[in-house]
Amino acid sequence: MEKKEIIGILKQVSEGNLTVDEALLQFKTAPFEDLGFAKIDNHRSLRQGIAEVIYGAGKTPQQIAEIAASMLANGQKTVLITRLNKESAEFVSIKIPLQYYETGNIGIAGELPEPDGYGKIVIATGGTSDIPVAEEAALTAMALGNGIIRLYDIGVAGIHRLLEHADDIMSARVIIAVAGMEGALPSVIGGLADCPVIAVPTSVGYGASFGGLAALLSMLNSCASGVSVVNIDNGFGAGYLASMINHIGAE
Amino acid sequence: MEKKEIIGILKQVSEGNLTVDEALLQFKTAPFEDLGFAKIDNHRSLRQGIAEVIYGAGKTPQQIAEIAASMLANGQKTVLITRLNKESAEFVSIKIPLQYYETGNIGIAGELPEPDGYGKIVIATGGTSDIPVAEEAALTAMALGNGIIRLYDIGVAGIHRLLEHADDIMSARVIIAVAGMEGALPSVIGGLADCPVIAVPTSVGYGASFGGLAALLSMLNSCASGVSVVNIDNGFGAGYLASMINHIGAE
Amino acid sequence: MEKKEIIGILKQVSEGNLTVDEALLQFKTAPFEDLGFAKIDNHRSLRQGIAEVIYGAGKTPQQIAEIAASMLANGQKTVLITRLNKESAEFVSIKIPLQYYETGNIGIAGELPEPDGYGKIVIATGGTSDIPVAEEAALTAMALGNGIIRLYDIGVAGIHRLLEHADDIMSARVIIAVAGMEGALPSVIGGLADCPVIAVPTSVGYGASFGGLAALLSMLNSCASGVSVVNIDNGFGAGYLASMINHIGAE
Amino acid sequence: MEKKEIIGILKQVSEGNLTVDEALLQFKTAPFEDLGFAKIDNHRSLRQGIAEVIYGAGKTPQQIAEIAASMLANGQKTVLITRLNKESAEFVSIKIPLQYYETGNIGIAGELPEPDGYGKIVIATGGTSDIPVAEEAALTAMALGNGIIRLYDIGVAGIHRLLEHADDIMSARVIIAVAGMEGALPSVIGGLADCPVIAVPTSVGYGASFGGLAALLSMLNSCASGVSVVNIDNGFGAGYLASMINHIGAE
Amino acid sequence: MEKKEIIGILKQVSEGNLTVDEALLQFKTAPFEDLGFAKIDNHRSLRQGIAEVIYGAGKTPQQIAEIAASMLANGQKTVLITRLNKESAEFVSIKIPLQYYETGNIGIAGELPEPDGYGKIVIATGGTSDIPVAEEAALTAMALGNGIIRLYDIGVAGIHRLLEHADDIMSARVIIAVAGMEGALPSVIGGLADCPVIAVPTSVGYGASFGGLAALLSMLNSCASGVSVVNIDNGFGAGYLASMINHIGAE
Amino acid sequence: MEKKEIIGILKQVSEGNLTVDEALLQFKTAPFEDLGFAKIDNHRSLRQGIAEVIYGAGKTPQQIAEIAASMLANGQKTVLITRLNKESAEFVSIKIPLQYYETGNIGIAGELPEPDGYGKIVIATGGTSDIPVAEEAALTAMALGNGIIRLYDIGVAGIHRLLEHADDIMSARVIIAVAGMEGALPSVIGGLADCPVIAVPTSVGYGASFGGLAALLSMLNSCASGVSVVNIDNGFGAGYLASMINHIGAE
Amino acid sequence: MEKKEIIGILKQVSEGNLTVDEALLQFKTAPFEDLGFAKIDNHRSLRQGIAEVIYGAGKTPQQIAEIAASMLANGQKTVLITRLNKESAEFVSIKIPLQYYETGNIGIAGELPEPDGYGKIVIATGGTSDIPVAEEAALTAMALGNGIIRLYDIGVAGIHRLLEHADDIMSARVIIAVAGMEGALPSVIGGLADCPVIAVPTSVGYGASFGGLAALLSMLNSCASGVSVVNIDNGFGAGYLASMINHIGAE
Amino acid sequence: MEKKEIIGILKQVSEGNLTVDEALLQFKTAPFEDLGFAKIDNHRSLRQGIAEVIYGAGKTPQQIAEIAASMLANGQKTVLITRLNKESAEFVSIKIPLQYYETGNIGIAGELPEPDGYGKIVIATGGTSDIPVAEEAALTAMALGNGIIRLYDIGVAGIHRLLEHADDIMSARVIIAVAGMEGALPSVIGGLADCPVIAVPTSVGYGASFGGLAALLSMLNSCASGVSVVNIDNGFGAGYLASMINHIGAE
Repeated sequence: MEKKEIIGILKQVSEGNLTVDEALLQFKTAPFEDLGFAKIDNHRSLRQGIAEVIYGAGKTPQQIAEIAASMLANGQKTVLITRLNKESAEFVSIKIPLQYYETGNIGIAGELPEPDGYGKIVIATGGTSDIPVAEEAALTAMALGNGIIRLYDIGVAGIHRLLEHADDIMSARVIIAVAGMEGALPSVIGGLADCPVIAVPTSVGYGASFGGLAALLSMLNSCASGVSVVNIDNGFGAGYLASMINHIGAE
Repeated sequence: MEKKEIIGILKQVSEGNLTVDEALLQFKTAPFEDLGFAKIDNHRSLRQGIAEVIYGAGKTPQQIAEIAASMLANGQKTVLITRLNKESAEFVSIKIPLQYYETGNIGIAGELPEPDGYGKIVIATGGTSDIPVAEEAALTAMALGNGIIRLYDIGVAGIHRLLEHADDIMSARVIIAVAGMEGALPSVIGGLADCPVIAVPTSVGYGASFGGLAALLSMLNSCASGVSVVNIDNGFGAGYLASMINHIGAE
Repeated sequence: MEKKEIIGILKQVSEGNLTVDEALLQFKTAPFEDLGFAKIDNHRSLRQGIAEVIYGAGKTPQQIAEIAASMLANGQKTVLITRLNKESAEFVSIKIPLQYYETGNIGIAGELPEPDGYGKIVIATGGTSDIPVAEEAALTAMALGNGIIRLYDIGVAGIHRLLEHADDIMSARVIIAVAGMEGALPSVIGGLADCPVIAVPTSVGYGASFGGLAALLSMLNSCASGVSVVNIDNGFGAGYLASMINHIGAE
Repeated sequence: MEKKEIIGILKQVSEGNLTVDEALLQFKTAPFEDLGFAKIDNHRSLRQGIAEVIYGAGKTPQQIAEIAASMLANGQKTVLITRLNKESAEFVSIKIPLQYYETGNIGIAGELPEPDGYGKIVIATGGTSDIPVAEEAALTAMALGNGIIRLYDIGVAGIHRLLEHADDIMSARVIIAVAGMEGALPSVIGGLADCPVIAVPTSVGYGASFGGLAALLSMLNSCASGVSVVNIDNGFGAGYLASMINHIGAE
Repeated sequence: MEKKEIIGILKQVSEGNLTVDEALLQFKTAPFEDLGFAKIDNHRSLRQGIAEVIYGAGKTPQQIAEIAASMLANGQKTVLITRLNKESAEFVSIKIPLQYYETGNIGIAGELPEPDGYGKIVIATGGTSDIPVAEEAALTAMALGNGIIRLYDIGVAGIHRLLEHADDIMSARVIIAVAGMEGALPSVIGGLADCPVIAVPTSVGYGASFGGLAALLSMLNSCASGVSVVNIDNGFGAGYLASMINHIGAE
Repeated sequence: MEKKEIIGILKQVSEGNLTVDEALLQFKTAPFEDLGFAKIDNHRSLRQGIAEVIYGAGKTPQQIAEIAASMLANGQKTVLITRLNKESAEFVSIKIPLQYYETGNIGIAGELPEPDGYGKIVIATGGTSDIPVAEEAALTAMALGNGIIRLYDIGVAGIHRLLEHADDIMSARVIIAVAGMEGALPSVIGGLADCPVIAVPTSVGYGASFGGLAALLSMLNSCASGVSVVNIDNGFGAGYLASMINHIGAE
Repeated sequence: MEKKEIIGILKQVSEGNLTVDEALLQFKTAPFEDLGFAKIDNHRSLRQGIAEVIYGAGKTPQQIAEIAASMLANGQKTVLITRLNKESAEFVSIKIPLQYYETGNIGIAGELPEPDGYGKIVIATGGTSDIPVAEEAALTAMALGNGIIRLYDIGVAGIHRLLEHADDIMSARVIIAVAGMEGALPSVIGGLADCPVIAVPTSVGYGASFGGLAALLSMLNSCASGVSVVNIDNGFGAGYLASMINHIGAE
Repeated sequence: MEKKEIIGILKQVSEGNLTVDEALLQFKTAPFEDLGFAKIDNHRSLRQGIAEVIYGAGKTPQQIAEIAASMLANGQKTVLITRLNKESAEFVSIKIPLQYYETGNIGIAGELPEPDGYGKIVIATGGTSDIPVAEEAALTAMALGNGIIRLYDIGVAGIHRLLEHADDIMSARVIIAVAGMEGALPSVIGGLADCPVIAVPTSVGYGASFGGLAALLSMLNSCASGVSVVNIDNGFGAGYLASMINHIGAE
C-alpha cells in the first residue's frame, strides 16, 4: 500500500464511502506497505534503467529464466544475475537475451545502463586469483550505472605495481580492494586514498588462510582510516555499496 | 618533496646550476614525498578546521598534552583525542583547553567545527550498553564537521522502537549501526534504509558473545545490501568513514 | 520389567513360589526397566497415532524399509523418516506405502495424524534457502499431531514482510524461527511474540557464516526473552520440541 | 497509538474534523504503536503481580534504585533485579524494600507472587559451582509466579545421584538443566523426561572448557529430543522461558 | 647396535684388536641403537604372536601387500592393517591370506592371537554411527591379544540401556568409550567404573559438532576421574593403549 | 541400599512381615543405591588409608576445614586438598593438622600413605614453569599410595637432557608428561617408553599458545602409541589416573 | 625505469633536449621502477641460471606452457613450476622440455643449476606422508642452486631415528623441518642444531589436527631458539627462504 | 661426557685399567653428552663475549640475580635478561651491575659486545605500540653481537613512510618486521627486500585482533617470498634467529 492508497482510503472515509471499521480492516491486513517501507523499490523505479538483481545460487536455470523474463516483461531494462554458472547461463540464454561474463559468474539480461554515478569506482585485486570476486563487484557496479577502473594483480608484495597506479587510487570516488591470503591491500590503498575503501576478503589461499579468515581478520584490523569490510568473496555486496556511495552526490 | 620542488630541481639542472649527479642524489634521498603521497595531509590542509586525531590509548597524559598543544599552536582548530580515560583527561585539561566527553572516552581540544557535510549521520544502538562506542563515533563525526542524529536503544527485540524512527532512518545520508550480543541491528536498518550502513559490533554481551565475535559474524553475514563492517568497538573508524561519505558530495 | 512385573515377583516370593535368591537374580539381570525408565515409550503407547521416528541418515534403504514395515505391522499408524534422500525414498516406497516430501527430505509411512495440539505452531524462515530445514521441522510437527502455519522468506532485511504476518506471530502457541546467514530472525520474532521461540540456525550462507556458526552465535546471544536454540540445521529437533510444548496443556 | 486511537482518527476524518492530510501526518509520525506491537506490555498488565525485570549489570546502584522505585510506585508488585552484586544491593536496599539473594546475584523488590503456573519447574545442576546460575534461573522463575524444585549437584559422573531423583524429573512440566565442564546433564535428563529441557551451559571449568564453550557445544549436540539451549550463564533467560512454558496451559 | 655389540667392541679394544680411534668411529657412526632405544621392538619380539601394525591410509594396495607379506615371511603371526578400504582389501587378499572386517576398515593377515591380557576390555559406543571407530578399537585390541566385550548403542540419552550393562562396566579392567555428538558417554561410564576409561570422540554429528570438536571438548572436561582422551576417530590408539593397560599386570 | 538390604526386604516379604506394596515403595524411593552404584565408595572403604579428595577451588577456607575435619573424624587417614592457595592453607592449618605444598597448591591433612602400587610413576615436565601442574599430579599420586620419580625440565629442545633419563623412562609403569608451549614431550617420551603415557597440557606459554590450546592439540595428535590426554593444567586428573593404572596389577 | 634512465632524462634536461614539464611527465607516469624497486629482478639477472618460478595452481596447462616457453626463450636456464599436477605436466611436456617430479608436484623446465650455495640444506620430515611437502621444498631449493640432504621419516616418536642423523643435523647450514600431526620435529631439531630451522607444518593428520592447525600452533610455540614458521604445506616458501639463507655468505 | 672422555674410557679399557662391564656402565649412565649434543654450548664457548640468556618471566628477582651473578663469575661477559619488569630490575641492579632498558623489558648484565656479524639487522615496526616487542628483538640482537638499524612506526597505511627507508630495507642482511593489528608490514617489506624477513606479530590491537591472531594469520599467509614467522610478541626469538643468520657467513 503506497502513500496515495492511504490518502485514497482516508478520502473514501471522509466522503462516507467507507466505514471506519472497513478502513480499519484495510490498515490491519496491509499495515506496513502503506508506510513507505517499500521505499527502496519506489526509489529504484524513479531511476529507470537500474538493475534488478537475481541471486542465482540455489535456483534452477528454469527459475532464473522465468524470473528474469518476468522482470524484462515488466519494463526492467537491466537484470543482473549473480552466482550463475556456465551451464545455467547456457540454458537461460536460450530463453532470454543474456550476456554472460564467465569470470565473475555474472549474467546480464537486457542492456548495461549508461554510467550515471558521480565519479569512478576503482576495483583493485591483490592477485590474479582474486579476479573472479573482483569481476562480480565490477559487473554489479556496471549494472547499477557506474564507471569503473580495474587495477588487478597489484598486491602489496610488489609495492611498485601498486604505486604505479597511485593516480587512479588517489582520484577514485570509492575503491573496492579485493584480496585473499594476508589481505593487506586495503590497508595500503586506504593509506594512499582519501575516499571510502570497501575491503573484500577472498577465500584465495591455503593452509592458515582458513578459507579467507586470515584476510578477513587482517582487513577488520586495518590501521588505515576509511576502510570497512564485507563478507568473504562478497563481490556483489561490495559493488552494490560502492554504487550507493557513488550515487550519493545526486541527492 | 612536493611537485614544485621536483620542478625546482629539474629547472636547476636545466639552468646548469645543478649537475646530473647532484640531482640524482636528491631524488634518491627523498624520492617519495615528491610524488604526492602526502596527499591526505595536503588535502586536509585545504579543509581548515577539520580535526586532527590523537589515539590516546598507550600514550601518557604528558605525551597527549604535548602533541595536542603543538597541533593547536600550529593553527589546528579542532583536535580529537580518542580512548582518553578520565584521569588522563583531567591531567590534559590542566595543560590545554579541553572538553571531555566521558561516555565516549573522547576529549576535544579547541572547538567543534560547524557541520559542513551534505546530510545527517544517524547513529543507532541496539542497547544502552552500546552507547560508549556510539558516542565515540558520534563525537568523531562531530569533530570532523557533521550533523548527527542519535537513535539509541532501538534494538531489534523491540522492533516497534526501531520503526518509530523509520523517518530518521529513511532520510539519513549514512547510518552507523552499533550493536553487541546478536548484532542484528544493521540488517534490519539496512533493509529500511537506502543509504550506506556502517556496522559496528561491540564487545557488549557475555558467554557465547565471545567478546563481540558473535555480533561481528552476524554483521558480516547481513543479508541486507549496503552494509559494511568495521572492527569490534571501533566507533572512531565508523565515525571517520561516515564523515568521509557525508562529505563526498562536495567534490 | 514394568511395575506389575515387580509386583508379580514380590507376590511370588510372598507366596513361596520364588526363593529370595531367585528374586534377587531377576532384579540383578533386569534392574532398571522395572523402574519406569521406559516411561516415554509407555507414554507414547497411550497416545496412539503419534509417530515413531527413524533417523534415515546412515541407514541403507533396505534397513529403513524393514524397520518401518515392522513398526507398521506392530500397529504404529505413523512412521516419520528423516534425512531420507530421494533415491532411498524410491526404494522404500516399493516396499511400504510412503509419502515422500522431497524438500524436507522426509518420508511418512502410514498416515498423518489429526492435529491434537492446543494451538498452532508457526514456522518462519529468513530466506528461501532455509526452507528445507523448515520443512523438516514442519513435517515432524505434523507427524506428531500439530497444526502448523508456514511463514517463509520473511527475513529481517525486509522487515515489512515480517510485520505483515504480525497477527500470526502474536497468536502462535510456539514458534520455530529458522535462519542462516546473520540469524537475526528469532530476535525480531521473539520481540513480537510472547510465546516460546525455538531458534534453528542453518548452514545457509558462505564465507564468514562458517557453516552456520554465525547464525548460531547470533541466536544464542539474542536479546529477546523466550528464545532458545537447537543445533545447526536441526529441523527435526525443533519440530519435536515444539510439538512437546504444544501438547503440554493436555496434562 | 492504540487501536481505539486509530478508530478515533478515522472517525474524526469521517466527521470532517480532520482533513485527510492531517490524518496522514498522524499515521506517519506514530505509525506502529497503534498496531499492537506493545502487546507484550498489554498482556503483562493483564496478569497483575508478575515481575518487571531490571538487568542490573552496567547500571549504577542509584539508577537501579530509581527505576525500581518508579515501577513500584506505578503499582508493580514484584520487581526482579538480575546481576546485582552485594555492594549495589546494599545501596538499593536503603532506598527501597529489597530482598537480596546473594548466591544468584538477584534482588527482589516488592513481594514474590504466589505460584500460578500449571506445574513445577525442576532446576538441576551438575555441580555445586553451577548453583549461582541455577539460582538466577530459580529466582527468576519464582518472581514470575512458578513453583520450583531444586536438584543441585546431580552430575552425570555420579549417575546414581541423578537417578535417585528420577521421580521429580519424570513429573516435571519443564526442566532447566544447568552444567559446566562437559555439559552432559541435559542429555541424560532429556532421556529420562518427556517434557521440554532448557539447557544452560555455565562458564564453570578451566582449560579446555574455554569459558563454557565445551558445555555449550555439548548441549547443542545433545542426542536427547526436547532439549534446547540458551547462552552461557544465562540463568535468567532459562527461568523466563521455563515460566512461559509453565503458563501456557492457561490459554 | 645392541648391547652385545658394544661389549664386543669394548672386548676387541681390551684385546688390542681394535684401536681407540677405530672404536670411536664406530660409536660415532652408530651411536644410538646400541643404547636400547629399540627396546620396544625387542620387547615385542619377546611376546611372540602380538601383531605388527600397518597404517593403511596413504599406502597403495601393492605396498600394503608387500609389507604384510614380508612381515609374515619373517615369522610374524599377526599383522594388523588399519584404515584399509574394501577395494584395497580385495587386492591385498589376492596376494596374502587376509581376513577383512569392513565395519572397522581393518584387515588381519595371519591369525588372531589367543587373548593373554589380565582382564576384559569393554568397548562401548553412544550410538550405532560410532561403531566403525569402536570396531577399529576392538579389532586392534583383539589383534594385540585381548578379550573384549562390545556394548554398542548405549548412549546417555537412554540411560537405562547403559545401566543394564552396569555389571560389565563395573567388572572391566579398562574401558574404551566411543561417542560423537555431545560426547557424554565417558563421563557417565567413568562415574560407574573404577578402572581407566579411554575416551574416543568421533566425528559423528553435524552442525555444531564441528567434526568431533564438541565431543572432544566434552570429554576433556569430564568431571569423572580416571578418564583420558585420544584424538577424534582414533580407534586404533584407544585399542593400543587399552591393550597396554590390560597387559600391565604381567610384569 | 546395598545387596544385603535387598535380600532383607525380600526376606521380610517372604516371611509376611512386609506387604508387597510396602516393599515396592521401598524400591521406588531408593531404587539405585541398592544396585551397587556406590561401588567406588565401597571399594575405597576396602583400601583404607587412601586419600579422600577435596577440590579446594570455589570453597571458603572455613568450608574446606570443616569438610576435612569431618573426614578425619570419620577415620580417613589422608585427605588431599587440591587448588588450595596459600592464604586458605594458613587458615585451614589452624583448624586441622595440614601439610601444605605451595608449588602444587596442594594440602594434605593426615598423613601420606605408604606406596602400595606395583611400580613407579614417572612425572616429567618440559620446563620449570610446568612444575606446579606436575606437583599437583605428583602429590595426588603420592596421596593415593604411589612411589614417584620426578624428571623436571627435560624439554625436547634439549633432547640430551631427556635422553639422560632414558632408563627411568623405560622402566616406568606409567608416565605423566607435563608440558606447555609446543607440548611435544609426550610424543618423544611415548616413543621411548612402552607403558601408558598420560599427557597433561599446561597453560604455560604466551601468544599463539592460546592458554594451552597449542599444547593440547599437539598432544592429541601425538604420533606415539600409548599416549592419552587430560584437560589443560589437570595435574590431579593425571595423578589419579596414573594411580589407577599403577594399582591394576593388584586384582 | 632504471638508474641510467633517470640519469638519461636528467642529462636531456641539462642539454636542453627535454623541457622541465616533459621530464616531470616521465617521472609521473613511471615513477617507481626508476627507483630500484625492481631490484630483486635485477639481482636475479646478475645470478644467471637461477630459476624463475611459476605458481601452477589456478593456471591452465596452456598458460603454464606459454609462460615457461617465453621464459626459456628469454634465456632463462631454469624454470620451476610448483603445484603442477600430473595431467598438466603431461600437457606441458609436449610443448617444452620438462622434467616432472610427481611426488612434489613440481616441474622443471630447462636444467637444474649447479649448487652454488655456501652449505647444505637439510630437509627432514616427521613421517612418510609429509614427503610431498618436503619434496616441494627440496626441488625448489635445488632449482635455486642448493645442495640438499633428505632426512625423511625421522619423527620424534622414534627419537633414535632422528638421533642417528645427528651429524647431518649438526653440520647443516639451514634446516627445513616438515611435520604434520603434533609438529614436534622442529623443536627437537632446533635443540640439536645451531643453524636456522624453518618449520613447515603440513595438513597431514585427522581429527584434532584441524588441517594442520595443531602442527602450526605447536611450531609457533617451539621452545627451541632459531625456529621460524611458514604457512601450512608451504614447501616452496621454505625452500625459497632456505636458499636465501644458504646464499647469504656470498655477499 | 665429551669426546676426550670417550677416548679416555676406551684407553683405560685398552690398558686394562677398566673392565668391559665397568666401561659399559659408564656409557649407560651418561650416554649422550659424550656424543656432542651439547654442541651449542661448546660452540658458544668458542665465541667468547656472546650473551647467555635468562628468561626473566616466572623467576623471582632473587633467582635472576643469583643466576646472572653466577654466569658473570664464570667469565660470561654479557648476560641478557628478557621479560624483566622494572621492579625486578631495580632489585637485580643492587646485586650486580645491570643496564636496564625499560621499553623492551630487557636487562643486560656485563657489557654489550662489539658487533661481529656480517651485516646489519633492520628492525621495523608498523606502529609505536609495537616498539616494546621490537626493542626486545633489538637488544637481543645487540647482546648477541649485531649492529642494528631501527625503522619504527613505518606502517603500511602510510606507505610513503616505509618507502623513505627503502635504502635501509634493500641493503639489510636480515630484517625483523614487527606489527600488530593487520600485520601487513612483513609482506610489503618482503616485496622490497631480497634478504630473509622474520615476521613478529604483536598482540597490539583490540576487538577482532584476538590478541595478535589476526596479525599472525596475516603474516603466515604473506604472498612475499622469504618471510617466516615467530610467535606473537616473541621479540627475543626474532632477535636470536636474526643474529644466527647474520653470523652465518662467518663459517
